[in-house]
Amino acid sequence: MGTALLTDHYELTMLEAALASGAAQRRAVFEVFARRLPGGRRYGVVAGTARVLDALEGFRFDDADLDFLRQVVDERTLAFLRDYRFSGNVYGYREGEAFFPGSPIMVVESTFAEAVLLETVILSILNHDCAIASAASRMAHAAGARPLIEMGSRRTHEIAAVAAARSAYLCGFASTSNLMAGQRYGVPTAGTAAHAFVLLHDSEEDAFRAQLDSLGRGTTLLVDTYDVAEAVRIAVELAGPDLGAVRIDSGDLAAMAEDVRQTLDGLGAKETKIIVTGDLDEFAIAALAAAPVDGYGVGTALVTGSGHPTASLVYKLVARQDATGAMRPVAKRSVGKPSKGGRKWAYRRTVGGTATAEIITGAPIESRQPEQSEDRPLLAELVRDGEIVGRESLDAARRRHRTTLTELPLIAHSLSPGDPAVPTIFK
Amino acid sequence: MGTALLTDHYELTMLEAALASGAAQRRAVFEVFARRLPGGRRYGVVAGTARVLDALEGFRFDDADLDFLRQVVDERTLAFLRDYRFSGNVYGYREGEAFFPGSPIMVVESTFAEAVLLETVILSILNHDCAIASAASRMAHAAGARPLIEMGSRRTHEIAAVAAARSAYLCGFASTSNLMAGQRYGVPTAGTAAHAFVLLHDSEEDAFRAQLDSLGRGTTLLVDTYDVAEAVRIAVELAGPDLGAVRIDSGDLAAMAEDVRQTLDGLGAKETKIIVTGDLDEFAIAALAAAPVDGYGVGTALVTGSGHPTASLVYKLVARQDATGAMRPVAKRSVGKPSKGGRKWAYRRTVGGTATAEIITGAPIESRQPEQSEDRPLLAELVRDGEIVGRESLDAARRRHRTTLTELPLIAHSLSPGDPAVPTIFK
Repeated sequence: MGTALLTDHYELTMLEAALASGAAQRRAVFEVFARRLPGGRRYGVVAGTARVLDALEGFRFDDADLDFLRQVVDERTLAFLRDYRFSGNVYGYREGEAFFPGSPIMVVESTFAEAVLLETVILSILNHDCAIASAASRMAHAAGARPLIEMGSRRTHEIAAVAAARSAYLCGFASTSNLMAGQRYGVPTAGTAAHAFVLLHDSEEDAFRAQLDSLGRGTTLLVDTYDVAEAVRIAVELAGPDLGAVRIDSGDLAAMAEDVRQTLDGLGAKETKIIVTGDLDEFAIAALAAAPVDGYGVGTALVTGSGHPTASLVYKLVARQDATGAMRPVAKRSVGKPSKGGRKWAYRRTVGGTATAEIITGAPIESRQPEQSEDRPLLAELVRDGEIVGRESLDAARRRHRTTLTELPLIAHSLSPGDPAVPTIFK
Repeated sequence: MGTALLTDHYELTMLEAALASGAAQRRAVFEVFARRLPGGRRYGVVAGTARVLDALEGFRFDDADLDFLRQVVDERTLAFLRDYRFSGNVYGYREGEAFFPGSPIMVVESTFAEAVLLETVILSILNHDCAIASAASRMAHAAGARPLIEMGSRRTHEIAAVAAARSAYLCGFASTSNLMAGQRYGVPTAGTAAHAFVLLHDSEEDAFRAQLDSLGRGTTLLVDTYDVAEAVRIAVELAGPDLGAVRIDSGDLAAMAEDVRQTLDGLGAKETKIIVTGDLDEFAIAALAAAPVDGYGVGTALVTGSGHPTASLVYKLVARQDATGAMRPVAKRSVGKPSKGGRKWAYRRTVGGTATAEIITGAPIESRQPEQSEDRPLLAELVRDGEIVGRESLDAARRRHRTTLTELPLIAHSLSPGDPAVPTIFK
């Protein structure tokens, strides 16, 4: 699907006015950053970069688009749009990387005309995917070695669900319920049965037998449709001690998990796992750390960013040519929403392998540091002269996320609201 | 785009097991409802029904889908999916209608096999669109006669943004920034310029002149890039008293609107309107009722459902055939998430034109009421034997929403948390 109309009306009216005044062809630099992290979070996670590159590739105005836009802009602007191809450069933080207030997670350099049109779709993608990733990362850390299944598709827009599953996997979830995320992105998919399957049959025993016959003893049986203890007994009676897992979706999950573990152990099903689901978020997951739980399914809280469904990222013009052709930093000066003018570079400073600061500079710096200190550059080349050069696999991004987390100071993993894990230093 | 893979993995494993056991062909009734309204809201708004019908039409498994699903289900299930066509009936509340806890806003009747597959995509669409609509309706009421512009595309997933714009328009917003919502759904689009346009030029005066030359005096000039009072003076000097509007996007909007109104009036621009934007929600809009504001732009709060980004709707099996072929009500019995078995019908009881109750019954009722009392049936036929029969225009749904609101008791429009505006009575 073309992405060019996933754009705010005013990008096109600005383009029209700038084409008329001649300012459209001025070189310009836009930056994507967040002024703050939501809810006192300690770090954010970059996600969606690969989807931005896909959207850029599909950013073409076809005949139907141009017909529609005839009511929005003039002929000169339509002619510009007909030939639109982004010819500039894009730099960005890689997916899975952490970010902090002010981190320039994406930098777009081109003419004003070419770059302004991309604002809406770039922000839509990054605001959504970073919000999900930032929540997912906290959940994955809270879960420790226990696997997380993403199962929130039904609680968010049907296409947003696919991107949410991707972001969750990037940040350490083991699998998703979403089949299109499996097909499109290779995310492992998982799932067995819902209450409807039990209710469909004349007895719980009939339902379990049907499921075991079809999916094998390794399957996960849902045991809380009627009486949990009774269901667990029936399950082990039918499947034997090799039953893969049981799932509990309601009630006091910690207490129920204890009871179910005892019942399973008493029946000799010591290897049968316990999966819990039902309105879990990072706090509920952390609270279950001591319970005999082997895996978590997370739905609503994941796809809604656990209270923060958007990452508050903005796309700001920070530099542009003046009448003489020289580049000038620019920034809004009014109250409430200050921003810093000028193209920026970004580095993660680590000392002895632990991050100590996010360094934002007005020019690239040479990495000459005292021993054990390193300033790792964070901006990678994604698009060069209109050509996409920064693709990487989702698994590479997933590995980066793991590495990035080990580098952050321990306070990064506090679930209590507070300051960002490292300060942002503008140099 | 095909919608069949916008589906949870477990719908297919349930299908496989039910095909094997023979239960897949049992007649079944699923209902979509919310157990509660989020955040003490007084009513919810149905939206997304038309998008569900579109998704149903596109719910086909093509060769690529089937290839992918080879790793998920067996050959018998693949054969079923290859021929999948929904052949059942769907009833639903019409778009724009209010709903309350327990309202069966959609009812799907078919075989278990046909109906269970639709769970995920139906819930994704309705949970998203109803969440946005329910927030939008409160905002539109708070704004009264002043127009609302939806401009939240950048703060939500790029495709979800299109649906959000549709839901906002359905509930009384005047327009959207989202061009694809204009193209696909005919929602009026609007917008003029951002701070980037002012910053692109060497002076605010240059920028305003460029915009006025191109978009005419009726345009809206953004006046808070530098000094607001100075910008308003420049704007009127350049455009004259016929300037369409100015927009303020930061600061104390009530105080700034007062100042700007005085400045405009002092310059003779008495007809120039004032548009305010910047993190508005229904509460901020209500708080600006006494300020000299002529229109609102709403972004983040709209597309995130103003604190409640999902409508908590569930899709539950409520009845199915037993071994004798008789239909039986079914319901989960475990703690925490009770539901009521049996196919349901729904009526809005009004007395003297004002809604007094949501009546949910186990069988259709005859409308023989005492004088001035009426039980209006809420379930309309949407799909009959697999054929879509319930399409209507977005404007018809928009008109219905207006009518529905006038029928609700005044307490429905309270922004304070509390009980639903009318009780739900199960008969």
